Amino acid sequence: MTAIEQQPTASRRRAKRGNYAPSRARREQIASSVLQIVDQSGYGDVTVIRISKETGIPQSSILYHFPTKDHLLVGAMEYADSLDGKEYNLESAWPELSEDMLDKLIRMRLSRRNRLLLMTYLRGLATQPDNPASKYLATKDMRTVDHWTKLCTQLQHQGVMHQALDAKRTAMQVLALWQGLVQAFLRDDSLDADTMHDLFMDGMRHLTCRNWQEFLTYLSRPDVGI
Amino acid sequence: MTAIEQQPTASRRRAKRGNYAPSRARREQIASSVLQIVDQSGYGDVTVIRISKETGIPQSSILYHFPTKDHLLVGAMEYADSLDGKEYNLESAWPELSEDMLDKLIRMRLSRRNRLLLMTYLRGLATQPDNPASKYLATKDMRTVDHWTKLCTQLQHQGVMHQALDAKRTAMQVLALWQGLVQAFLRDDSLDADTMHDLFMDGMRHLTCRNWQEFLTYLSRPDVGI
Repeated sequence: MTAIEQQPTASRRRAKRGNYAPSRARREQIASSVLQIVDQSGYGDVTVIRISKETGIPQSSILYHFPTKDHLLVGAMEYADSLDGKEYNLESAWPELSEDMLDKLIRMRLSRRNRLLLMTYLRGLATQPDNPASKYLATKDMRTVDHWTKLCTQLQHQGVMHQALDAKRTAMQVLALWQGLVQAFLRDDSLDADTMHDLFMDGMRHLTCRNWQEFLTYLSRPDVGI
Repeated sequence: MTAIEQQPTASRRRAKRGNYAPSRARREQIASSVLQIVDQSGYGDVTVIRISKETGIPQSSILYHFPTKDHLLVGAMEYADSLDGKEYNLESAWPELSEDMLDKLIRMRLSRRNRLLLMTYLRGLATQPDNPASKYLATKDMRTVDHWTKLCTQLQHQGVMHQALDAKRTAMQVLALWQGLVQAFLRDDSLDADTMHDLFMDGMRHLTCRNWQEFLTYLSRPDVGI
């Protein structure tokens, strides 16, 4: 690869590009199949034999792209992330993220219980630095904090989050709240989506000091007159 | 065992007690050895051979008490919990839990990084219902929510948590915040104990509406005079 980069003739670049596209398509096909198995019956049912049967791709080729089961599971979540990114287009939508959209996002995430279980499993694996889940989660978590930091800054501009709060720290607290609540949700059958929604939205209100902002707005109303 | 309970003669009771105590002591000895290995070099280094070497207990006996590595890891954390319970006597201390004590607790937990990594690993394993980590964490999480619910009720009595908040829901939010922040701590090397302390204490203040309580106290001061 380094040799190719040192002598980038047109034909070599074409050959490289030519091989790259099908390879990428095949990776996606495998990852998509893994995600389907996860959604249908849980990550425990993911086997190379089953993926090979469902995609028609030889086992050797699956193992070439994803050398271990952990690589397959990480691949499935990376693929799921890319789908979510396209569908919700979070980055561009967030400056105008409404409570309504946040509500839909929360319920959508909770309805995909098998993916939440897989993410928790991957967090466990990521405690081993050489596991593929480790790099995946480090990147994903950093990106998510960045997204939420932007959102918090927007909330400050909208006047519904306290100006004196640090956007990044608040983003980290809100995300930690969400991740911790998901753990409770997975362990406690008595927690339904409505309760989870309230626990999160209510906690987010407090962490962003939204109630305080609304109190100040109330105080400045002409009929209150302070 | 049922037969013994049905005919509880004195000698049978003695025999039962006589066998039970050494068995329990041996379990504790094994669990203590596992915990030591975890603290020293991480849960990845826990092997039956190493435990056998360090305790002098035959491998067959270790496997009798803890049939799999996951059982050994859960056993180590149960043992750690029992030590923490004795040392900090959380339940009785909590009604008077000071910020100072909470500060020490936070720093103590963070200093035991290998145990945090093991707990995260166990949370991953607990996504498989038949794994011993599943039952352990269900019980532990329920107990922790109960403890924190009591603490929140106390904070309400002390007037430093808003009266209208539900103690159990606030406890769940505070715990979720902590668990989520620990995940960030384990993934992000730039987070030190001081930052973690601030993120948690600050978040807890907001979730319990402590700032609001302090504002009300301020308003009722004679020199403020509202």
